Amino acid sequence: MVKVAVIGGTGYAGAELVRVLSGHPHVELTMITSRRYEGRPFSDIYPAMAGIVNLTCRAFSEEAVSKSADVVFTALPHEISMGVVPGLIDQGKKVIDLSADFRFKDPALYEAWYEPHQAKELLKTAVYGLPELHFNDIQKASLVGNPGCYPTSVLLPLMPLIKAPFIDPDTIIADSKSGTSGAGRSVSLTTHFCEVNEAFKAYNVAAHRHNPEMDEVLSLFAGRTIHITFTPHLVPITRGMLTTIYVGLKEDVSTRDVASFLDSFYADKPFVRICPMSRFPNTMYVRGTNYCDIGFHVAERTKRLILISAIDNLVKGASGQAVQNMNIMLGFAETAGLDQPPFPL
Amino acid sequence: MVKVAVIGGTGYAGAELVRVLSGHPHVELTMITSRRYEGRPFSDIYPAMAGIVNLTCRAFSEEAVSKSADVVFTALPHEISMGVVPGLIDQGKKVIDLSADFRFKDPALYEAWYEPHQAKELLKTAVYGLPELHFNDIQKASLVGNPGCYPTSVLLPLMPLIKAPFIDPDTIIADSKSGTSGAGRSVSLTTHFCEVNEAFKAYNVAAHRHNPEMDEVLSLFAGRTIHITFTPHLVPITRGMLTTIYVGLKEDVSTRDVASFLDSFYADKPFVRICPMSRFPNTMYVRGTNYCDIGFHVAERTKRLILISAIDNLVKGASGQAVQNMNIMLGFAETAGLDQPPFPL
Amino acid sequence: MVKVAVIGGTGYAGAELVRVLSGHPHVELTMITSRRYEGRPFSDIYPAMAGIVNLTCRAFSEEAVSKSADVVFTALPHEISMGVVPGLIDQGKKVIDLSADFRFKDPALYEAWYEPHQAKELLKTAVYGLPELHFNDIQKASLVGNPGCYPTSVLLPLMPLIKAPFIDPDTIIADSKSGTSGAGRSVSLTTHFCEVNEAFKAYNVAAHRHNPEMDEVLSLFAGRTIHITFTPHLVPITRGMLTTIYVGLKEDVSTRDVASFLDSFYADKPFVRICPMSRFPNTMYVRGTNYCDIGFHVAERTKRLILISAIDNLVKGASGQAVQNMNIMLGFAETAGLDQPPFPL
Amino acid sequence: MVKVAVIGGTGYAGAELVRVLSGHPHVELTMITSRRYEGRPFSDIYPAMAGIVNLTCRAFSEEAVSKSADVVFTALPHEISMGVVPGLIDQGKKVIDLSADFRFKDPALYEAWYEPHQAKELLKTAVYGLPELHFNDIQKASLVGNPGCYPTSVLLPLMPLIKAPFIDPDTIIADSKSGTSGAGRSVSLTTHFCEVNEAFKAYNVAAHRHNPEMDEVLSLFAGRTIHITFTPHLVPITRGMLTTIYVGLKEDVSTRDVASFLDSFYADKPFVRICPMSRFPNTMYVRGTNYCDIGFHVAERTKRLILISAIDNLVKGASGQAVQNMNIMLGFAETAGLDQPPFPL
Repeated sequence: MVKVAVIGGTGYAGAELVRVLSGHPHVELTMITSRRYEGRPFSDIYPAMAGIVNLTCRAFSEEAVSKSADVVFTALPHEISMGVVPGLIDQGKKVIDLSADFRFKDPALYEAWYEPHQAKELLKTAVYGLPELHFNDIQKASLVGNPGCYPTSVLLPLMPLIKAPFIDPDTIIADSKSGTSGAGRSVSLTTHFCEVNEAFKAYNVAAHRHNPEMDEVLSLFAGRTIHITFTPHLVPITRGMLTTIYVGLKEDVSTRDVASFLDSFYADKPFVRICPMSRFPNTMYVRGTNYCDIGFHVAERTKRLILISAIDNLVKGASGQAVQNMNIMLGFAETAGLDQPPFPL
Repeated sequence: MVKVAVIGGTGYAGAELVRVLSGHPHVELTMITSRRYEGRPFSDIYPAMAGIVNLTCRAFSEEAVSKSADVVFTALPHEISMGVVPGLIDQGKKVIDLSADFRFKDPALYEAWYEPHQAKELLKTAVYGLPELHFNDIQKASLVGNPGCYPTSVLLPLMPLIKAPFIDPDTIIADSKSGTSGAGRSVSLTTHFCEVNEAFKAYNVAAHRHNPEMDEVLSLFAGRTIHITFTPHLVPITRGMLTTIYVGLKEDVSTRDVASFLDSFYADKPFVRICPMSRFPNTMYVRGTNYCDIGFHVAERTKRLILISAIDNLVKGASGQAVQNMNIMLGFAETAGLDQPPFPL
Repeated sequence: MVKVAVIGGTGYAGAELVRVLSGHPHVELTMITSRRYEGRPFSDIYPAMAGIVNLTCRAFSEEAVSKSADVVFTALPHEISMGVVPGLIDQGKKVIDLSADFRFKDPALYEAWYEPHQAKELLKTAVYGLPELHFNDIQKASLVGNPGCYPTSVLLPLMPLIKAPFIDPDTIIADSKSGTSGAGRSVSLTTHFCEVNEAFKAYNVAAHRHNPEMDEVLSLFAGRTIHITFTPHLVPITRGMLTTIYVGLKEDVSTRDVASFLDSFYADKPFVRICPMSRFPNTMYVRGTNYCDIGFHVAERTKRLILISAIDNLVKGASGQAVQNMNIMLGFAETAGLDQPPFPL
Repeated sequence: MVKVAVIGGTGYAGAELVRVLSGHPHVELTMITSRRYEGRPFSDIYPAMAGIVNLTCRAFSEEAVSKSADVVFTALPHEISMGVVPGLIDQGKKVIDLSADFRFKDPALYEAWYEPHQAKELLKTAVYGLPELHFNDIQKASLVGNPGCYPTSVLLPLMPLIKAPFIDPDTIIADSKSGTSGAGRSVSLTTHFCEVNEAFKAYNVAAHRHNPEMDEVLSLFAGRTIHITFTPHLVPITRGMLTTIYVGLKEDVSTRDVASFLDSFYADKPFVRICPMSRFPNTMYVRGTNYCDIGFHVAERTKRLILISAIDNLVKGASGQAVQNMNIMLGFAETAGLDQPPFPL
């Protein structure tokens, strides 16, 4: 059993890590830290876990964490992670960071959208943790920058097709819809029940910080600069993210052709399911799972390809993918701890 | 007081007509017909209306309706309306039809997406009831084809800009999200609570019957053929529709320029509200009202204009707009019966 | 037109007052105060109201309010109201207070559950604003303590029956379920979307501050001490409150007998609707209205009477009832401004 | 690996059985029958299961089922089960029936609330499958009548206390609130999204068929006749049931005393969690799990005990409990297949 710690374990992504790790066959969860809830049993904060997780939240200390764990998940706010991660790396720990701090190759891009970066050196070795793209690098990585939820939902359907000759990469539009848990556990009017329930809206229109992240990954992979138009929306559900992508076609292409690109790219990937042609993803079908379901349609009249992906933003969009990365880093089966049957409803 | 009847008054659009008409200062609701609930008090079917609406549902008969009312709203399923409307027109009634049967100018287009048309002659004189576009024609009309909910949400933001020199009309994509009441009151697994709640999906991807409707209206208005890529989605809320539109820009244009196009087009229109630049629509802000809120953003990096509209699909997207049309046809104030203050939440 | 002001106009109860008052035929809303949003247009805070309410929020000042208005609604937190109301009364204003500060006759009872009372003298003249019980006193009152939402939902079904010979007043249990807007607009983890959505719980079990309020009113009315067992629950909806009441029967009684007690008590009350015997209330049927729907059932096997009431907690449970009180105080029709047709869904 | 079949596998309870069984370490799911979906892959009906469950739905035949499986779950509508179960028992199968058909000891009671019983003989040997009460009998049973969801939520909190000297068994009131999945997958207006969403109501007031079921079990256990007043309500959530129980106290008793009764009764029961005194159950904490959480409070002023239980109606209230019963019948660990960590949200 490998010992693991979750830093920032009482936010939603942290608690979801605790859930997945507490059912993982090859790891032992040895420490949960929480600034706010230091000294309180984790199951006081998340009573669902009573009888399952018996740890008490502790304050973060590099020394204590290093003694307790060989693998560390950092589920901290952006900008705080980069103050904590370098020390853990120095201690020889493997770190999977769920913030944005180690997702970018280009520090200038990070700094344009976030803050001055305090650990630029680490960006050179950190691996962007999208296992369907960077499996081999993740295997060897000490530090993985776990992808954002929106980028995960945008990149997975686009990657198999971005280099296809019939695609015009300058025409990509991603219209995403996210459940409310993506906003985290910190209270605000934006996530107040009565402001979300029975409502639907766009936010950060063409100005979301996940936009440069997906642009960078896609550009590096395609070998040319790509800018996506990206609009996130808030859905009055707890878990789930659906992204509808529109891509202009340079040539005629059939739905069947698209299917074969997707099918072959994901042939041996356990967490991507390509929908049959008559069916489209629904966040309900992936809730609580690490799956990304992908559907597709060629709109012949307007010569556009429509791609639709669905993930659970807290699992494949955050904590599940982080554990998938850990599995790869440690040589476990990629699906270890992530293979509970989905809920039918 | 003008006498009005609602044909098909126990579906959701019909019941919403009953709501608006029962609070209208210049009309008397004299008859509600319902095949299914003949002989039962309307307030048995909609107990909210107990003490407000005292009518009993009756079976439809052209003669009885004609005797009872001078204005008739037909809220029947597509294809059934066209069997009923011609007789009412022959009786000299003014008719506002909420089905798709009298929305198209081109019968071939209707027939390609629906059924063989049984009243093609009436298509020549029927007026498409989008008051912000066809006010003068509606004033003189005997028969108004009330617009679909999706077309209303797509056309209102697009019309002021479709002829602007900086717009590329071949690049229009409309990504719409609708509340569940748009699917009506007929039960089906698609609208079963547990299949909608905590779920989000696209449906009828690039194959929805409202697509040719919006294409035809837009093409006629722009004076050239326009095809939109249109994808509807289902939101787990009862009322509300939000549409996000993406349009390619042929020239640089500022958000301020766009604002002036929208502001001037809707300067004297009581039911369209243009959002200030820093704010975007939310279905919550228009719930229960006849408003269409419109927001906009110029994505400079990708040279696209993003337009966002919000309506209540049952009001501006159906019954409210139908009453607005009646007001115009009868010379009432356009806002009569439609001016209750909105709910803050 | 009577001039009215809303003090604390940007909380949910305050905003709901603004909604009702802005559609009221006999009043002019002249001032909205808000400590937090001083200087900002009300429609910035509630964009639904854009184009409807053009007032800017102001800081509270007794002098400014007194100059602007003859009737003042105070929608302030408990314990803050009592610092503000006495000055307004001294200025000769009529005041309807939505806090708990002027609901109790017995200051000791208030102080046992809230704080030391700073304006005990006013308790002697303040009238408990349940119009179906205290119409005549409200007519003459300068200060009305507007009832709590739970007490309204408990008292209305119980009052017609509490003196009936077949009722055992020592056996009353009220199990209430409230929508989330009852918790107000202040953010907290308790009302965070992901903590309320897809969840259901009891809270403040047999320890809610509305319990002594209902006990006092009921005891005074019945002429004997009554203690109710009261448990509130939180429902993942925005608006609505349903209360299920269980009362032991000392004698056999038929559902028809109960009906006649209820019907005769509420014969001329415009906002109470007694359900027919085969039907029970639903919060959906009263949403957005000032109605209280009441259903009832005699459980013969267990000799208990079950009463069920439904209200919109923000309307009959708060702001609508406050306006109803104002109507009575000013001699308007009791329903003025409160008679829009309900929504069918 | 024991071979198991699910009869009626495409309703919600059936699909939930498929979920639990497909993750069970000691069984192999060999057959799913469905009248409606015969010949279609199960994952067509429940796309969440794509890649997990590869079975095709088959029509029911006693012979085919008997060949394929040693244990059979019947998830059929009431009254249909009793036509199918006797044949399976004759074939020597172990059967867990999720309908009401084998829950009653007294056939007359069943027939008073349901239909004439066609397999009365089996009622003598069938065991009521509440493992916390009938563990030993279940071990030896061939046929288990799996409890109803409401009875499970009512019986578990009451059983430890029903024989306590301070309890008055003639005063029990159970006010239950259920998620909508309890109504099953068959479409109806009652479960139409727009009729449930943003609504709350009671139904079958003091007339629900689960009432005699709980009365019979409780009476047999207590050794005296007990009638409960029971009112179910519908909550706009998919999964979850919360029951609030009120019991009159004949003597003074402290919350601590109650705690010790509950704690000792459930000391070694893996699926019942007694909440600490300061905390009450929430359906959210048990969602997707086989737990029953129980909270309690002594209302001293009114001398009543309040008990609150929360279960997932589809798991502990149906399919999870059925698998728990199977585990006991087959000598597996009681928690096998039911021990995935709960979701924090």
